Amino acid sequence: MYMSTYKLEKHLATRLKNMTCSAIRDMLKQAGRPGFISLGGGYPDPESFPIDIIRSLRILVKRKYKNSIYQYGRSEGLIQLFEQLIPFFKRTNRSIKATPHTISITTGSQQALAILAMMFIDPGDYIAVETPTYLGALQAFNPFQPRYIELEVDDEGIVPDKLDKTISKYPNIKFIYIIPTFQNPTGKTLSLDRRVRIAKILRKHDVIAVEDDPYSELRYEAEPIPSLQSLIPEKVIHLFTFSKTFAPDFRIGGIVAPPEVCETATMIKQGLDLYTSNYNQAMVTEYLAGGHLEPHLKKIINLYKPRRDLMMSLIDTYFPLEISHTNPLGGMFVWAYSNNSKTIHINTILDEALKKNVGFVPGNPFFARKKNSPFSMRLNFTNQSNSNIEKGIKILGQILHKYL
Amino acid sequence: MYMSTYKLEKHLATRLKNMTCSAIRDMLKQAGRPGFISLGGGYPDPESFPIDIIRSLRILVKRKYKNSIYQYGRSEGLIQLFEQLIPFFKRTNRSIKATPHTISITTGSQQALAILAMMFIDPGDYIAVETPTYLGALQAFNPFQPRYIELEVDDEGIVPDKLDKTISKYPNIKFIYIIPTFQNPTGKTLSLDRRVRIAKILRKHDVIAVEDDPYSELRYEAEPIPSLQSLIPEKVIHLFTFSKTFAPDFRIGGIVAPPEVCETATMIKQGLDLYTSNYNQAMVTEYLAGGHLEPHLKKIINLYKPRRDLMMSLIDTYFPLEISHTNPLGGMFVWAYSNNSKTIHINTILDEALKKNVGFVPGNPFFARKKNSPFSMRLNFTNQSNSNIEKGIKILGQILHKYL
Repeated sequence: MYMSTYKLEKHLATRLKNMTCSAIRDMLKQAGRPGFISLGGGYPDPESFPIDIIRSLRILVKRKYKNSIYQYGRSEGLIQLFEQLIPFFKRTNRSIKATPHTISITTGSQQALAILAMMFIDPGDYIAVETPTYLGALQAFNPFQPRYIELEVDDEGIVPDKLDKTISKYPNIKFIYIIPTFQNPTGKTLSLDRRVRIAKILRKHDVIAVEDDPYSELRYEAEPIPSLQSLIPEKVIHLFTFSKTFAPDFRIGGIVAPPEVCETATMIKQGLDLYTSNYNQAMVTEYLAGGHLEPHLKKIINLYKPRRDLMMSLIDTYFPLEISHTNPLGGMFVWAYSNNSKTIHINTILDEALKKNVGFVPGNPFFARKKNSPFSMRLNFTNQSNSNIEKGIKILGQILHKYL
Repeated sequence: MYMSTYKLEKHLATRLKNMTCSAIRDMLKQAGRPGFISLGGGYPDPESFPIDIIRSLRILVKRKYKNSIYQYGRSEGLIQLFEQLIPFFKRTNRSIKATPHTISITTGSQQALAILAMMFIDPGDYIAVETPTYLGALQAFNPFQPRYIELEVDDEGIVPDKLDKTISKYPNIKFIYIIPTFQNPTGKTLSLDRRVRIAKILRKHDVIAVEDDPYSELRYEAEPIPSLQSLIPEKVIHLFTFSKTFAPDFRIGGIVAPPEVCETATMIKQGLDLYTSNYNQAMVTEYLAGGHLEPHLKKIINLYKPRRDLMMSLIDTYFPLEISHTNPLGGMFVWAYSNNSKTIHINTILDEALKKNVGFVPGNPFFARKKNSPFSMRLNFTNQSNSNIEKGIKILGQILHKYL
């Protein structure tokens, strides 16, 4: 009845033309099938959720907070959470000095991306992103109709000299969006040396960087590297989330940024969803206050590191030689790609894999400008058992051998 | 350090010029003072939160739902919640036949407003709103730079003949935004007869209405009136929330709309915050499934109705004769106004009231085009005790007598 009488097209805003549903989401619809092995998605393992801690925190929150915790809350965020975040940001993986005026809480870090897009992007504005970049960020930015500049990367991420030249060419660039640590989708990490050079470039050109950091707590080897924001706080908007280190469903993320950015973010957030659940913020507050993060991180790392090791060794064993892969030191993803397979499209591999009950995310949607997309796949190692990772990679290897 | 080096202005998107922080929010910052009587805000009384039910629901959700409730969820919403919403929408205050394809869950109904703004509004597009209208809707719409048409209202709300003429004059109007039941800020309710006539006008002109309905469960007298959507489902996007009938902090709202609208809303929501907390959706699911809504509504109504009665009678007693007020049959607000007080600005009254520890929301921010703003105030009766309502209205009466 609705379908025939409702001509939605003619009513829609022009920005809708820039938008598509997530390729990941479409693919994940298959993931519910029994026996399906998804190496797609960017999901933590539900086994990693600290269920016993959550139960004890619920009791604690009930005792410590008044019934008014269920009332409308501050758009900026819960004051008690700010107090716990200040030491959290000081951990060596971020090394950030925050104050209550430089923090804004958002409903997951996805909302932070949407807020920043609303804050900065006019239609046609240039923003620069890594090649490839997080597709959820593209989904947050696209409705505001930016023009994308793709930043050249090598095995270690963004190449500072190239960045310098790019910004010189586009001096009005609104911001550069980067994921310096265990990047999504590639797993790459920018060295401290490069971060220092990028900080200098930002200062020289007076350009803002949005530093997305959902993964830096999930380091499986080597020493932490301080965040870009710690090097140049006045030019960097730093994003954080508890989706990977506590559980996604609390929907707690946010930004650390200069006070004017936080104030503007708060104003925008009011229009978007008024405020983020106080109760869920209280849960994260007590998670941090109770010292639960450090032991829980150890558990997650003990769960994920062997899966990463296994996946990389299986790719080496079962994938054709012409497929290269990154060597992530942390995070959730390995990026497998070939620069020589122009004749076969990655979607052919995906179709065949889905028939055999294995899923992955093809590389294309991670490229801001699709024509640049090489033969590539993002493989997630955090949400499957060792035996499923083994089965999945073997099946993908067979398919790749058949077509390449 | 930040302030001196960060020149935010030059980086901002032009849409920011249309945005301001909520007047309510600024006023409410005062509300924390001891002894302060806030008749501002649109808050339920925390006394009304069903704390014992919430506790039992937490136990039930833990037992019924697997740990994967804490995992990333569907952008559309939790399937189990959809099943409970279908009978909920059938209640006589909404009279809506919904299906799983005509429901989308949002993070509070504020997010639904933001999603609809993104879906429909190009800069310069016309949208029509009641005079006055909900300021949170204006905050959601403003970033997308619409031009507002103010719809003429009388004591019973929108005047259908005038609406017909207005739409004839602006045939490209993107949507009309209305709150037909216990309107915010006026408390007015559109009669069934007017709803039927408005439905015909929408059909005749092929115009969409956004029907915001946060209050219709809170009826203190007379029989329920079916929603506008029940009369013309293909042209109306209906909004709902559990913020007033359960608790705001679960942040559960949503839309009922034609399937294409829901699909588009889901795509937009992905970019905004991926999905709404599964756990919080499960809490609302079990609240409805357990039959808790009906007895709890009785309790809330028993709490709020006497407060409404008291406030109206006190206004009649203590306010100057030239101040008129609406007679809301439900909801949370009384609107007090004078059409003869052009010489004194409402903010003069507010300043004096704040000094005497009483708050209310001045009428101006509820008008889409400020120049139309008369001398008016929104008075909330749900979040103060009878004795505080009495104190507050007496003080306001004294101030009004002094200036008018």
